[in-house]
Amino acid sequence: MQDWLLESKKIQALDTAWRAKARERLRVQTRPEGSLGVLERLLERLVAIQKKDRPQIARKRILIFAADHGIAAEGVSLYPSDVTRAMVLNFLNGGATINALARGLAAEVRVVDVGVHGDFGADPRLIHAKVRASTRNMLDEPAMTVQEFDQALRTGWDLACAAREDGVELLALGEMGIANTTAASAVIAAITRAPVESVTGRGTGLGPEALAHKIRVIEKALQRHSDCLEDPIKALQCLGGFELAAMTGAMLGAARSGLGVVVDGWIVSASVLAAMRINPQVLDYLFFAHQSEEKGHRFILQAFEAEPILNLSMRLGEASGAALAMGILDAAVRVYNEVATFSEAGVSGRNA
Amino acid sequence: MQDWLLESKKIQALDTAWRAKARERLRVQTRPEGSLGVLERLLERLVAIQKKDRPQIARKRILIFAADHGIAAEGVSLYPSDVTRAMVLNFLNGGATINALARGLAAEVRVVDVGVHGDFGADPRLIHAKVRASTRNMLDEPAMTVQEFDQALRTGWDLACAAREDGVELLALGEMGIANTTAASAVIAAITRAPVESVTGRGTGLGPEALAHKIRVIEKALQRHSDCLEDPIKALQCLGGFELAAMTGAMLGAARSGLGVVVDGWIVSASVLAAMRINPQVLDYLFFAHQSEEKGHRFILQAFEAEPILNLSMRLGEASGAALAMGILDAAVRVYNEVATFSEAGVSGRNA
Repeated sequence: MQDWLLESKKIQALDTAWRAKARERLRVQTRPEGSLGVLERLLERLVAIQKKDRPQIARKRILIFAADHGIAAEGVSLYPSDVTRAMVLNFLNGGATINALARGLAAEVRVVDVGVHGDFGADPRLIHAKVRASTRNMLDEPAMTVQEFDQALRTGWDLACAAREDGVELLALGEMGIANTTAASAVIAAITRAPVESVTGRGTGLGPEALAHKIRVIEKALQRHSDCLEDPIKALQCLGGFELAAMTGAMLGAARSGLGVVVDGWIVSASVLAAMRINPQVLDYLFFAHQSEEKGHRFILQAFEAEPILNLSMRLGEASGAALAMGILDAAVRVYNEVATFSEAGVSGRNA
Repeated sequence: MQDWLLESKKIQALDTAWRAKARERLRVQTRPEGSLGVLERLLERLVAIQKKDRPQIARKRILIFAADHGIAAEGVSLYPSDVTRAMVLNFLNGGATINALARGLAAEVRVVDVGVHGDFGADPRLIHAKVRASTRNMLDEPAMTVQEFDQALRTGWDLACAAREDGVELLALGEMGIANTTAASAVIAAITRAPVESVTGRGTGLGPEALAHKIRVIEKALQRHSDCLEDPIKALQCLGGFELAAMTGAMLGAARSGLGVVVDGWIVSASVLAAMRINPQVLDYLFFAHQSEEKGHRFILQAFEAEPILNLSMRLGEASGAALAMGILDAAVRVYNEVATFSEAGVSGRNA
């Protein structure tokens, strides 16, 4: 048994005393009780994760895991595979959407090459952790060997633990990889047993014919690996991608080390699904950034009993939804830490 | 005919050439087309309002209109009327939720006393514009006389125009006033002809019995003023409040002077409803911050064909939802202004 698997079993339940403390502070601040809705539930968890009277998320890190996919050869994406590498360079040059959002948050961006076609030079914002240039074509063989999968997952785990050691107070996870909505849908269909067409969307913008083709490719892949579907870890190894495995590792590692994680949209939810099958306790540490436009995401979020922070019909990836949600969390933390109580402000409470 | 009414008719339609320019820039930035969902539609309008290649919303002002309500005597709120004044003092001392949110945005907060019980000293953050200490009890007589209503509306109009002259780039409107969900529901029921119970919610947290009482009070008020319901301006005057009238004036004035406005939740939507009946063109200038928890808000937002930016089950008021939405708009503007195009970044577009 792998050590990350053993460690994953040790993720701690959130401290009920800290949750109660947070609820009490929210109750006595100068507002009608419960009037901040979802924000109050987010704050309650954040306080219980950090175990602090005044939670802090000033130090934020965004990890973008990038990898290519063997299944791209089947023509499942509108964009050619070399866009993965080009977008990584765009991230490093600060030209992408996530860079603009991260600047607004004063958050660090780290791009992790876990399996991109082509090489990169040295760059302080790039973490070289390539397992292999692209996964294998899952129509022919498992997307990853057991060793490759383990290496990718461990990369994510280690980066989450390193973030905690660096003093990061809130982590965000996102991804870049041409064809990875196909891998994500395959993993989700495998683990949830949902019909493929109910969890397969247009990705970067497929038309109806190309979408039908993508669904057929996923169905073929599920047939090819029918012996892997029972076990979420095998499903992730056979049908997933390096970035998906790494994000599963990162969320488990973050939860194990007591660090809150904002998860992006559709593709990351495949990683969440695998992680929660390994230990459902991980969900307490996850903040679901948004309900994306991708078909099936709402259904999956309901399975997690998640309250997504945003619902803006986005379908971009690269942690863009997570970054926007981090801004909402920043605002919520400020409210929690700064708003006066009824007694401090001399405001009357409710009528008796 | 009042001059603000004449001026309201002159609100300009958004420039189609600027809208097209915005769509084109969004299309060529390094992202799949349309992948920012709702944010793209917000940006398109903001660019067309500002008529700038690079829109700016660094200078933000939040106006909180505060007033008391004669109808509070009927026991429609959980909180006593003196909470309105106490909360205004809390705003001025920086201790309320909106203050914490505004600090995070570096936005100005201005509290406008349009009708609070009790007096306030001089304070640079307080605008003295009291029409009268509280509206009249609408069960007995119109909430405002025609002159009072006109004065309140004009106050809002003038403050919006002054904001534009001061160089404010984005305005937010919110309110504080014990019992004002009752006034808002009455105005909304009158203008939309919806059944009272479908547009009356728990306000600051009423139980079922108190809610039934609130509904009966509103129904009585509608009967008392049955001759006023046809005309949205009369409905606002007879059933509304000073802060509701002022916000209607502020959104019309902002639209007339070409300034975008973020509108908060349920109560502000009563003001929007009156404004759009005066000139539906005003809607192009409004950004709907959030769908609140208050019953009926979703229905009202659909009537506006609004896409609310957030949906966090909030029901606080005091422009808190508007402030959170301003943060999302800040992020969107940064993306619009900073993200590289495909050609700048050397990223391939779609497959042919």
